[in-house]
Parts: sequence; structure tokens; C-alpha cells
Amino acid sequence: MMRVRWLCVAVAVAMASTTGAQAEDGYDLWMRYRPLAKEAATALDRDAESVEMRGQSATLRVAADELRRGLAGLTGHAFAMGPSPHPILLATSADGDVGRLGLPLKDLGDEGYIVRQVRLGGRDVTLVTARTDRGVLYGSFALLRHIQTGGRLDRVALASTPRVKLRVLNHWDNLDGVVERGYAGQSLWDWWTLPDFKDPRYTDYARANASIGINGTVLNNVNAKPDSLSASYIAKAAALADVFRPYGIKVYLSARFSAPIELGKLKTADPLDPQVAAWWKAKSDEIYRAIPDFGGFLVKANSEGQPGPRDYHRSHAEGANMLAAAVAPHGGIVMWRAFVYADTDPDDRAKQAYTEFKPLDGKFAANVIVQVKNGAIDFQPREPFHPLFGAMPRTPLMLEFQITKEYLGFATHLAYLGPLFAETLGSETFAGSKRATVAQIVEGGVNRHALTGMAGVANIGRDRDWAGSTFNQANWFAFGRMAWDPTIGAQPVAREWAAMTFGPNPAIVAPVTDMMMGSREAVVDYMTPLGLAHVMATGHHYGPGPWVADLKRPEWNPVYYHRADKAGIGFDRTRTGSNAVAQYAPELARRLADPATTPERDLLWFHHVSWDRPMASGRSVWAEMVHDYDRGVGYVADMRQRWDGLRGQVDAERWTKTATYLGIQEREARWWRDASLAYWMSVNGRSLPAGAAAPAHDLDWYKAQRPAFAPGNPQ
Amino acid sequence: MMRVRWLCVAVAVAMASTTGAQAEDGYDLWMRYRPLAKEAATALDRDAESVEMRGQSATLRVAADELRRGLAGLTGHAFAMGPSPHPILLATSADGDVGRLGLPLKDLGDEGYIVRQVRLGGRDVTLVTARTDRGVLYGSFALLRHIQTGGRLDRVALASTPRVKLRVLNHWDNLDGVVERGYAGQSLWDWWTLPDFKDPRYTDYARANASIGINGTVLNNVNAKPDSLSASYIAKAAALADVFRPYGIKVYLSARFSAPIELGKLKTADPLDPQVAAWWKAKSDEIYRAIPDFGGFLVKANSEGQPGPRDYHRSHAEGANMLAAAVAPHGGIVMWRAFVYADTDPDDRAKQAYTEFKPLDGKFAANVIVQVKNGAIDFQPREPFHPLFGAMPRTPLMLEFQITKEYLGFATHLAYLGPLFAETLGSETFAGSKRATVAQIVEGGVNRHALTGMAGVANIGRDRDWAGSTFNQANWFAFGRMAWDPTIGAQPVAREWAAMTFGPNPAIVAPVTDMMMGSREAVVDYMTPLGLAHVMATGHHYGPGPWVADLKRPEWNPVYYHRADKAGIGFDRTRTGSNAVAQYAPELARRLADPATTPERDLLWFHHVSWDRPMASGRSVWAEMVHDYDRGVGYVADMRQRWDGLRGQVDAERWTKTATYLGIQEREARWWRDASLAYWMSVNGRSLPAGAAAPAHDLDWYKAQRPAFAPGNPQ
Repeated sequence: MMRVRWLCVAVAVAMASTTGAQAEDGYDLWMRYRPLAKEAATALDRDAESVEMRGQSATLRVAADELRRGLAGLTGHAFAMGPSPHPILLATSADGDVGRLGLPLKDLGDEGYIVRQVRLGGRDVTLVTARTDRGVLYGSFALLRHIQTGGRLDRVALASTPRVKLRVLNHWDNLDGVVERGYAGQSLWDWWTLPDFKDPRYTDYARANASIGINGTVLNNVNAKPDSLSASYIAKAAALADVFRPYGIKVYLSARFSAPIELGKLKTADPLDPQVAAWWKAKSDEIYRAIPDFGGFLVKANSEGQPGPRDYHRSHAEGANMLAAAVAPHGGIVMWRAFVYADTDPDDRAKQAYTEFKPLDGKFAANVIVQVKNGAIDFQPREPFHPLFGAMPRTPLMLEFQITKEYLGFATHLAYLGPLFAETLGSETFAGSKRATVAQIVEGGVNRHALTGMAGVANIGRDRDWAGSTFNQANWFAFGRMAWDPTIGAQPVAREWAAMTFGPNPAIVAPVTDMMMGSREAVVDYMTPLGLAHVMATGHHYGPGPWVADLKRPEWNPVYYHRADKAGIGFDRTRTGSNAVAQYAPELARRLADPATTPERDLLWFHHVSWDRPMASGRSVWAEMVHDYDRGVGYVADMRQRWDGLRGQVDAERWTKTATYLGIQEREARWWRDASLAYWMSVNGRSLPAGAAAPAHDLDWYKAQRPAFAPGNPQ
Repeated sequence: MMRVRWLCVAVAVAMASTTGAQAEDGYDLWMRYRPLAKEAATALDRDAESVEMRGQSATLRVAADELRRGLAGLTGHAFAMGPSPHPILLATSADGDVGRLGLPLKDLGDEGYIVRQVRLGGRDVTLVTARTDRGVLYGSFALLRHIQTGGRLDRVALASTPRVKLRVLNHWDNLDGVVERGYAGQSLWDWWTLPDFKDPRYTDYARANASIGINGTVLNNVNAKPDSLSASYIAKAAALADVFRPYGIKVYLSARFSAPIELGKLKTADPLDPQVAAWWKAKSDEIYRAIPDFGGFLVKANSEGQPGPRDYHRSHAEGANMLAAAVAPHGGIVMWRAFVYADTDPDDRAKQAYTEFKPLDGKFAANVIVQVKNGAIDFQPREPFHPLFGAMPRTPLMLEFQITKEYLGFATHLAYLGPLFAETLGSETFAGSKRATVAQIVEGGVNRHALTGMAGVANIGRDRDWAGSTFNQANWFAFGRMAWDPTIGAQPVAREWAAMTFGPNPAIVAPVTDMMMGSREAVVDYMTPLGLAHVMATGHHYGPGPWVADLKRPEWNPVYYHRADKAGIGFDRTRTGSNAVAQYAPELARRLADPATTPERDLLWFHHVSWDRPMASGRSVWAEMVHDYDRGVGYVADMRQRWDGLRGQVDAERWTKTATYLGIQEREARWWRDASLAYWMSVNGRSLPAGAAAPAHDLDWYKAQRPAFAPGNPQ
């Protein structure tokens, strides 16, 4: 029988590749569940004979279904439900047998889990347990991850509790299907056929998120249409919430602050107007009738043209608290974004959020969390951490990362963002009496806020591979894993992802992890070395545009950010300049005030320095920049070579697409390097260091390159 | 061994359903190739042991690959290439052995094929042959279709030659990915990653088209951007052409007539200006360098705001001929659309194309074909055939159908368009001394034009099921099959499609075919009974809007088309009205001039009649309209029931989506009926016939229904 089974697997695999129906198109993400090597599969067969469930709930059922699906794929044969001598047993601590085991369940909270081999009722059991069904679901995914990455059941002992409470995707999805800054096709939400049609893909989306611990999703763009709060769209959101609920995922909506005017026909959206507050209260009640576990609102107010409380001379706290009062009776929250900069404020854009929000510390209602981008400008390849972290100890702060690569080459450039996330999270703020990293503040800070959160601007669309490329999937994965545990580290996450995505073969996992780990730094090198920022082309932010100087508002122009002239380059944010450094804790501010004690990677972010200033390497700033550009280009060329070495080891479809994208990336890394150097030379009048290749074209040629119809850039 | 093989198939099928990787999401279209019933599979195994190829070419290779893929799927086991005692043999008539068989190959032309069991070199061979590789490709698909629909090899004898030369899809795809009138997601063409990345889906698109005989594709919207003719987009189009070439599919581009100004920086686009002609000549040369078999241009000129020769007081012929001269040296053609109506012309919109084009008969260059919509207005659920058919005997006319359902409920309403296509094609024009149907004119007419063609506005997008629903796939299929043979008939095509899409089980095929055959008439019934037209809501054309009367141009308003008043309803197109009937051949014009001899289905298209006028049924016009609305709603309710009866027989995923869509359709058919009746009653002051249900809401309620963010409606 065993022989027949294996023969059949071989036939099944052969058939699949013959008919093409099981093509590796990336749809399965890291939940790939392909047959393990024979020895591992045999061990798995021995240690797990069935999936057994204690109790009944939608969440337990999806956990059991996922295990059954995963084990069927990993072993190559169908998997039974029900009792057996060696089951995988799903049970909460409410189960009497589990309770008697005396496991350390107390500290698991609502979402933590324990997975352990135990002796139970005379059987050797792989127990997945937790205090809640959701915990069991997370434990089930942890067990699958353990097996997918090469772990065995006979010694399994996993336990984990999330360190951050709200782990939320922000979809910048417009109601017409366009995703702002989306590079993976249309919005996943087919609003037109909702609420009637629940695309099976919505379920797979929920599975993917639950598998990495994401427990919330904001369905619509922060640049919100009022329509998203209309009765018809509430019904659509409710249909999605119904799909997501068993997976522990709450739905949130971005709210347009002026909706009382547009939808409610009021004359004002003034947060202190009782009619406005009543409108939001009634609207919230309406939403909670349709979605009893609705998460709450995300608000972008008085930012880039969006309406907000400042239109009525009210503070952000007054605006947020009014909304918070509307959802509080239902247990809802408000995520209020701190990403603001005024049209008229002549001050350094990097300073404005701090200036506006810092005085509001302690003024927000208990169910408000202020959502702060990782850096003070806008999701650059590298930014120093946002000075608000550590500056608002009495206010819960939610860290916002951009998973989609608006400024990092869209979907076609390979840039693993784990190191970017880790860099921000690990940054020492020097705030308070006890030092704290950004991660510690996000986890609740010295005041141990109950409300903690991390938001990621999703890179997900309707493209078959969800994220526009296989490697972009890693950024979704890393966001989830690092929101669950901000200290986990970028490399272990990359390794996990690679093993789950390509199989646990070290001959693939090792080089893939290596490629990934340096890839974001390569983008920094070929786009924005030494602390440069926002030198991308206008609007779509694709390709170089350091020469752009003609846009209406000063802070829209790359020249505003790099301030290059004949003598030097960089934005002086010390006392002689904008003094943005003073927004950091004193110890850090002191270090950043001096180029000598500023990390070189942030030099031009904080300082305007001479082209000739010597760097630690002994090279001048100018020579170092050239060196960095070349290093970035070289890294991409090297990634191509390494990927070439995996030809035949990775399935053809994913291999080819990645190889093609790496080709685009190498060409465009050169474009970035050459265009940037051509421009810097036109400013500083210098020649290239010996050995550096001249740009392939002259500056005018680069200025004339204007990619048409760039995605993700509605109007 | 046989037992093990079958066991393995069972396991493979079980595995597939367990892992979900082979979910029936509709991606496979009618090329589904699922295992046949055991007896049929055994017979197939006996009669075909391998796929053997004589000669080498990219087209022969894709033909052989398709057979191998198809036979592997249909038999459930891998299929060998190469010689065997009973092969399927692919060979052109150039092969000596085949030549000696004396088959009737002469009349096959470049694309026809013969598939036949023959004795060849001592073997029983299933021969697929033709004069060209493309013919062999079409024969291979015909053989697969034969097997998929329940045919056996031992008596196979197929032969067919297309009756129309150009069988072309028109993609109204914008360069930003939005498909005008597209209801199946974004454009299939990912211009952003082209030409580097050739999505494997492009190949599947080519396979699908080749399988139904489509041999050309216009990549971009007829409302064309000049950019589509820029060097960068030519390279992208060339990459697609490279993918499509082995499948016998030529690429065409929609050309913006003013491109010489926008791209070429000329001061004019006057077709008689030598600089303009030279620009188009150079542009054509540039395109042909990249795409040596480029098909040519499709042009929408002086229509709905598009630029054209009339801007320079030149005729459409002068404009078309100038472009035709540019592509003629390369063997290219120009498809010039006759869909024109002026902003200022107060005449009946239905007359304007005829008025403008009829005088140009005989004035077009030999490589121009004039593309005429099936009706004189715009792709309504029903229109009488366009009066230009038969009126331009000296000009090749290409018939344009809309496969996408702009006016027939988008993707969610089930409406099989085969009967619509067949109705137009079978219409008797009474033109010339010999009577001719529209099909005969399309096939070349009395002058036996060498250039013949049929165009279909594609319903294809990036949605997983390509067309927005399973049943919409049937319209793509039917267009291809009926462009190949306009006389084939809607029902045989429906039956073929159903068998290929759901398997050849008569218990499924028969009810599915039945549902399909009446589905378009149901849409006519619940939207536009008795010859009504263009009563849809504004802009997106979704849902009822017969009351709309406030749009700028008269012919944009539904009231322009139905002209309902207290006394009667309908557009008088006789001598007492616009006299559009005079554009038809005299015999037909005579019949249409009199309501008594006008087909009742077209009554209100041609006549303004009293609400009380008796119909053949004995009912008044008003009662007949109510009856038709109810019949339409009833048909949809009945389709739901019939589909319910197929639960469990059709795979769950496609069954559920279809069932959900039928639910939407039934609700919306009622909406159409009730809203229309509420409006007509407000106009004619009548009550409903006895037994007819009152509308669920009052008229104001219906007027207030405005679907937001309807797809397919850019701007």
C-alpha cells in the first residue's frame, strides 16, 4: 500500500505539471504546503495521524481545516479528521483534559498559544492550545510553519504571545478599484459584486493574514470617500467582516472627516458641534448593527488636502475624541494619523507632525491611538525614526510602515523590508528615564498602554501573486511577523519565509535569505545614499528626479530635500538650520547636532556638508556617494547571478518572473545611479573619482525619461 | 498496471480537491480537459497512443503541446510525444505521405483543416492536416473540441475552413489598465512590466483565442492615447506579438488620428498634408520593424470627441486611405469605424453613419475595411441590423459586435449573446439583385471581397475567470465560433461550450444550453421590450433610466429614444418621422414603414404607436410591455431554479458564483421591470393590467437609485 501511495503521489505531481493546473503562480503565498522530502513526510505521518478538535466554533473549524489542508499537502495524502492514536489535538484551556496538564497558559492573553507534545488520556498527542479559539488558530499556523520550515513533531514545543495588540493592514484602496500606491493590480475588494458575492479569495486573504498574526484590516483608502460610510457600503464591509471573523480579523474603515456634510447634509463637520457628534454617533450605531465587532475608524485629517478638525480651529485631539466617543460604547477605537504638514507652514516638513501633536500628549481619549509613520517624511528607503516616538509618553502610538514600495521601485525591484522594519523598531530613542527603543514604545512604553498597534500599508492587489512579485510577499509576511513580535529580527523572518515559499531545502533557503538581507540597503545605495531623501520623480515617485525644482509647494521638490549646491549637499536640521534634531531626546539631539557623531547613513538627512568632507572610509562625501551608488548597482547584479544559480531548483514560473524583474531592477539601478551622478556633477562641477564609469547619457536625456501611466498614482 | 493507473487518478483527483490547488475557478475556460468518463477514456487510450509531429515550427509545436496537455487531462495520464502504432499525427500537406492520400486540401485556404482517421504507412492514424501550420493548429483544437464534446476518434472526420478572414477582438483597454466597458477587472496587458515580463497568462489568452479561431487582436482602446504609438509602447506591443505569433494571432493597434500632432509635433493631422502622410509612413515603418506581421490600424475618427479627417474637411475615405497607404507596403490594413454621430447634427442618430458613409462606397483603398456595429445605435439588447449592411457593395464591411455587456447587465447578468449574433447575421437585407443576409455580406457579399472580417469588443480582463463570470466566457467563445462560421447557429455553439466547460454529461449540457438560449431574450424583455432602446442610466448604462431627460445632447437622453407621452410610445422612423427606414433596401423599407408589417420585436424602434394598439397576442401595446417585463423576470427566476437543480453536479466554486449572480440578476430584473413600469405609468396615466404586480416602490425611489463607482466607465 505504501508503495502505491508514493507512486500515486508521483503520478499526481506529474499530472499537475502536465496539465498546468497546479502551476506555481505564487497564489499560495507561504501557505504552499507542497510534499516534504520523503523522510520528513514519513516522520510526519508517524507523529500525526489525524486532526482532532475539542469543541465547536467557526474559528476552531478553520484552524482544523487549515491543518488538514496543510498536512495533506505536506504528506501528499488526504488527512483524516477525528481521534486517532497520535492526533494533532486542537483544544482551548477550557477543555478539562487540557486544564489538568498544568501548562503555563496564564500569560498567553487572548491570542497566545502553546504547541507541545503531551501525554493525554493514554495517547501521545500534539496539542495546540490557548485560552481562546483565536489562540488555537494562531497555534495551528505556528505548527504548520514549524513543519514547513523543517521542524518535526516529536520534539515540538512552541509558545508565543503577541507583543502588540493591533496588527493591522491599511488598504489604500479606492472604491473604484484603484489602489493608491498599489502595484499588484486592482483592489482585492470587488465592491461592485459585494455584498452578494463573497469571492473565495477573501477567505484566502484572511487565511494568509491569520497565518502571520494580522488581526485587523482597514478596507479603504485613508484618502477616503464619504460613500464608504453609506448604508450600501456598510453592507459590503459587513460581508467582508463575516468572511474575516472566524480568522480573528476585525474590519476597520477610513473615515472622511467631512462625511457629516457630504452624507448627512449638515452644514458643518465641526467636532464640537452637537449635531456633528450626534451624526457620528448614529453612524457608528448603524455600522455596529451590521458589524458587531467593527474595529473602528482610521482618520487622515488636515493632511494633503483632507478635511479635519483644524478646518474649524479645533485640535486633532478634539477631532479624534469626538469620533472616539461615537465608537466607545461599542468597544471601538480611533486610529488618528499624525502624518500632517500644512500647505502654508514654511517650517521644515520633517518637524510639523511633532510640532502639532507633541502638545496634545495626554489629551486623547482612552480609545484613541495616534498612528505615526516610521519616519518624519514619507516612507523613504531610509529615514531616521520619527521624533514623536518617545515624545508622547501619555499617548498610545501606533507605528505605521509602508509595505507597498511607493519609494522603493514598486513591484519590480526586489527589496526585502525586514531590515527597514527592524532598523526603526530597534532604534534607541533615549526617551524618558529608562531608555527605550521604538519597539518598546510601540509595545506600550513606560506607561504600559493597553492600546498598542502596528499598521502596514498593504501591498496587496488582485494580481495572481497578491503582491506583484514573489519577493514582495515576503514584506507582507515580515510585517505580520514583526507586528506580532517586534524583536524577532529580519533574518529569521526571511529564512522562515524562504523555507515556506520555496521549500525547506537549505540550498535554496540560504542564498535566498542572503539575497533578501542586503536588498533594501542596495535600494538605499542606488536611490538615496548617505541620508538623501525624496529625490524621486514627481507624483508617481518612480525613477530619479533630483533635479525637480518647479513644483508649487517647496516641500514637494527634491531640491528642497537635498539642497545640493556647488559647495555641498544635505539638509541642515541642526540649530543652524531647521533644528529638527531638537525634537529628539536631548542625548540623541546632541549626537545628531554634530556630523561627527551622526551615523553616516543619516548624514545628509541632518547636515549640509561639503562635498569634500571626509568619511570614515577616508573617501570624500562625493566619492562615498559614487561608491554607494556603485555598490547598490553591484548588489543587484550580484542578486541576478545568485538567482541564476537557482534556475531549475525553483519552479519555472516563479523563477522566470523573478529573473525578469531582477533584470529590470539592474537596468533601473544603473539608471538611478547614472541620472543621479549626472545631476550632482551638473551641480558640483566635479568629475568622477578614478575608476568610476561615466553616466551612459547626458543629464538632459535623464530629465527626458518620463515613465507614462505609472501604476498606483490616481490623478 | 491499469488498476494502479486508475487508482492513481482517483488519488490525484482527491488530492487536488483536498489541497484546493486545482479549484475550479474558471481560469481554464473551455480548455478544461478534465478526465473523461471511464469508457470514453479507455476508447481514447486505445485510439490515440501518442502525438506525432511532422516538421518543426513554433505553431506545430504549440499544436502538439496543446494536444498533449489536453489528452493528458482527458485521459488522466501523461501523454507521449513521438511515433506509436496509433498516433495523432500533425502534418501539413507538404508532407509527402499526406500528399499521397489525395485529401481535398485545395479548398482549405490558409486556415482550414481536415481531421480524419487514415491508414498511413501501415498504421491507423488520426491525421490532423492542413495546407499551413496554422490550419494544423486549428485542426488540433477542433479535434480536442470533438473529444471534449463526447466525440470518439475511431470515426472522426472533421473539416472546416473559415468563412471570414479577419476574426478580431477589440480591446477597449486604456494604457492605465482601466478597460472601458470592462467588467472583468483590469486590462490583461500589464504595460508597466512589458516588454520585459511576458506573463504566462498572455500565452493562455493566445491559446483560448486560437482554440476558437480568433486570429487578430487590437490591443488598445479605440478611444486611443497617442502614447500607444510611441517607441516604448511599440516595444511592448511587439512583446505581445511575439507571444501570440505561434498561435496565428496578429496584433493591431488603435490609432489616434491626431498622433502626428501629439507625438510628431506637427501642426496638423490633415490627411492630405504630405508631412502628415510621411509621418504615418515613418511610424508604420517603425512599427513593422518591431512587428513584421503587424496587422494594421483600427480607427475611431470624428466620433464622440475623437479627432479625425472631418476636422480638416476631409472625408473618412481620405483619412482612411492615407493611413492605408502607410501600411500597404507591409501588407497591413486599416479597419475604419463607421460609428459616427455629430455633436450638432439634429438628424436621428440612427441615420448618421449611413448618411456619412454610404456616399463613400467605392472610395476606400483596397486595404481598408469599414467596421460597422451590428445596429445603428449602440450595442443595445436588441437592434435591427445596421442599414449600411447591403448599402455599400463596393466596400468591404467588417461587422462589429460587443461581447462585453455594456447594455446587458455587465458581468453579473447571464445573457448568452449567441442568439443576438445569429439574429444580426441571419437578417435578410434585401439588398442587391440577389438577396443577401448580413452574414453573406460579411463573408464578402456579391463582390466577393477578399477582405472580410468580424470584430468583437472583448469582455476579457485580469479577473481569474477572464470574463467576469463563467457564462460570460460563452460569449467570447460564441464570437470566435461564429466569426469562423457565421452560419453555425447559436444553439450548437452553446452546446459545444457547455460540454467543454462543464463536461459532456447531457444531464448538465441540456439544461445549461436551455438556460442560455433564452437568456438574452429575457434581458430584452426586462430592459427594452418591443424595440425600445437606450433607456439605461447615464454614463455607466447600468440599471433603468427611462426618465432621464436632462443631458446636454438630445441623443444622450433616454427620452430621445422612447418618446413616450400620454398617447403613445416609440420612435417614428417612417416618413412621418426621421424616415430612417428609407436607409434600408426598398423591399425592407416598405415593410418597416408600416407597423403592421414590422416585426413586433422592433415595433417601437421604428414606430410611435398608441399604448392601446393591439398586438398579435390580442393584448394592447401597454399590456404586452407589462407581459414582456414579467416574462423577462420570470425567465431569470426560472434560470435560478434550473441552476439550483445542478447543485452538486457542477463544481462548488463555479456553481456558487453563478448562483449568486443569478440572485443579483433576478433582483435587478425586478428593479428594471418595476422602475420602468413606474415611469411608464407616470407618463401614460394608466393602471396595470389585471394580475400584474404593482412596482415595489414609487417612481422617486427608483430615480434615487444611483449605483456608485460602476465599473467600465472611466472618468
